[in-house]
Amino acid sequence: MPISSSDRPFAGKTAAIIGGGVIGASWAALFLVNSLKVIVSDPDPEVEPKVKAIVAAALPALEELGYNIADVERNLSFESDNSQAVIDAYLVQECGPEKPAFKQALWKAIEAAAPKNALLCSSSSTIPASVQFTEMTDQSRLVVGHPFNPPHLMPLVEVVPTPKTTPEVTAQALAFYNGIGKVAREIKKEITGFVANRLQAAIFRESVFLVSQGVVTLDELDDVVTNSLGIRWATSGPFLSFHLGGGPGGLTHFIEHLGPPMEAAWQHLGTAAFDDATKALLTEQLGRSYGTTSFYALSETRDAKEVAVINGLSAVEAAA
Amino acid sequence: MPISSSDRPFAGKTAAIIGGGVIGASWAALFLVNSLKVIVSDPDPEVEPKVKAIVAAALPALEELGYNIADVERNLSFESDNSQAVIDAYLVQECGPEKPAFKQALWKAIEAAAPKNALLCSSSSTIPASVQFTEMTDQSRLVVGHPFNPPHLMPLVEVVPTPKTTPEVTAQALAFYNGIGKVAREIKKEITGFVANRLQAAIFRESVFLVSQGVVTLDELDDVVTNSLGIRWATSGPFLSFHLGGGPGGLTHFIEHLGPPMEAAWQHLGTAAFDDATKALLTEQLGRSYGTTSFYALSETRDAKEVAVINGLSAVEAAA
Repeated sequence: MPISSSDRPFAGKTAAIIGGGVIGASWAALFLVNSLKVIVSDPDPEVEPKVKAIVAAALPALEELGYNIADVERNLSFESDNSQAVIDAYLVQECGPEKPAFKQALWKAIEAAAPKNALLCSSSSTIPASVQFTEMTDQSRLVVGHPFNPPHLMPLVEVVPTPKTTPEVTAQALAFYNGIGKVAREIKKEITGFVANRLQAAIFRESVFLVSQGVVTLDELDDVVTNSLGIRWATSGPFLSFHLGGGPGGLTHFIEHLGPPMEAAWQHLGTAAFDDATKALLTEQLGRSYGTTSFYALSETRDAKEVAVINGLSAVEAAA
Repeated sequence: MPISSSDRPFAGKTAAIIGGGVIGASWAALFLVNSLKVIVSDPDPEVEPKVKAIVAAALPALEELGYNIADVERNLSFESDNSQAVIDAYLVQECGPEKPAFKQALWKAIEAAAPKNALLCSSSSTIPASVQFTEMTDQSRLVVGHPFNPPHLMPLVEVVPTPKTTPEVTAQALAFYNGIGKVAREIKKEITGFVANRLQAAIFRESVFLVSQGVVTLDELDDVVTNSLGIRWATSGPFLSFHLGGGPGGLTHFIEHLGPPMEAAWQHLGTAAFDDATKALLTEQLGRSYGTTSFYALSETRDAKEVAVINGLSAVEAAA
């Protein structure tokens, strides 16, 4: 359904994006259709055409999701000096290299230059804010706002405070991301991989195990997932699925009756490693399956399907 | 899109369903809209109204998927005697109790009564065909045809041959399920849980671990999944996701560069058990989240969303 102007509570505010790679540029597209002023800061002299190309490629999908994309690029600007870029920032969204020393020095500089109440968020998937804030004077201000790739399409943002983050900062971050149409959830402890990537690692380990054992090929395993678990988990997560799978007795009944076999199943799960034999097998199967189609064609199909799934789910929620 | 009559290559053939529980009745609905004659065999004297109620509840969703549901129930009949039920069967779809001795005796009786070329499939999720076929004369005929619940909606069927199954029988089972609109994939080894349920167990173990550690609540974890991984995996499975996540270098590039951190992430994954503290925590969180909505309302929303996702994906595939 179309996004109305009342759905853009942060219209007119300034977002400074530090780092103009694919994540930063995807954030830029999303912020622009939410009517924010966007300043991208990156030392790369070629950053402007690169970001503009990614934004232009992202806008049609955002339009399909209901956003008005007309002329939004007019609010996009570039400033190579980080300190200059953040002067009027409501939000600083850091998307720089995944290097602790880089981020530590960056936040020191940003803290000195940005407004005192600016929201300071790192997109990092691997470096918790408590590792990034070491050179900051007020360490209570920094959180991770980790998107799920690509940020302009995927609803999830994992907001990960540190033990020093104030509840107000966490609440402000959640309110901002939810206000621009994301589904933000607080991750209450700084744990490696946060939540989504840990779950992804868990399923990928078993996937590599099953392919390495010759149970299925990699493309067959993908077909299994897209035609069963993917559909299920797009509509209801692991707990709700088993809550409903347990019948009217729900999850309590499920754990009572199927808990012991589930615990036994956990014991049967495999382990995996990217040893030479596994790498050779995956590469060979890849060549015979996805390797025969271009990266761009595969990506285009995936993006179109993601938009269709998101819109299909939104329509059901709107009708409920 | 509407399913045309040319999409029903098994029209007029007879399917005997052994066991009229929720799985058997869901299969019945799917077979009926594919214009098969369906005979349900179950010793329960109340089976007829129970199956008819489940079929009636399933038909609207099948209509939304494009099937013509008008008057399909005329092809549904009941026969409590297994041997009578299978006399004209093109397919026997076993959906009985998950007890090895029951299935072993059943297949002996069915083999004696069914046509020599009938396709013999078990819906079992836990008992491989090589455990079920011990009393059969021709053990090469039996396979598992394991659906993903609910069978009338979820595309996946895992076809699991035994070491004795002939390639012709496996091919016939795949052709049948694909011919009635399912996505059937061969599982090449009889492994506990087959593929989909192993992957589900892997993600559920990590889910229970994260909730037990207080990282998120169970409903927050579900929101993480439905707003990120679920959408991703509904459109592309774990391998294709990382193939595209690796950029134009694909999965090969991904394994080379992100393989070592992925192996490290596997080492960080948690373990879980349904101990008393975990059960109490899950029950308490359940009460405050899903427990406040009726089972039927939650199920209805899930079903509507599943249909929306399946139709959204079909539309993209039809347009490609």
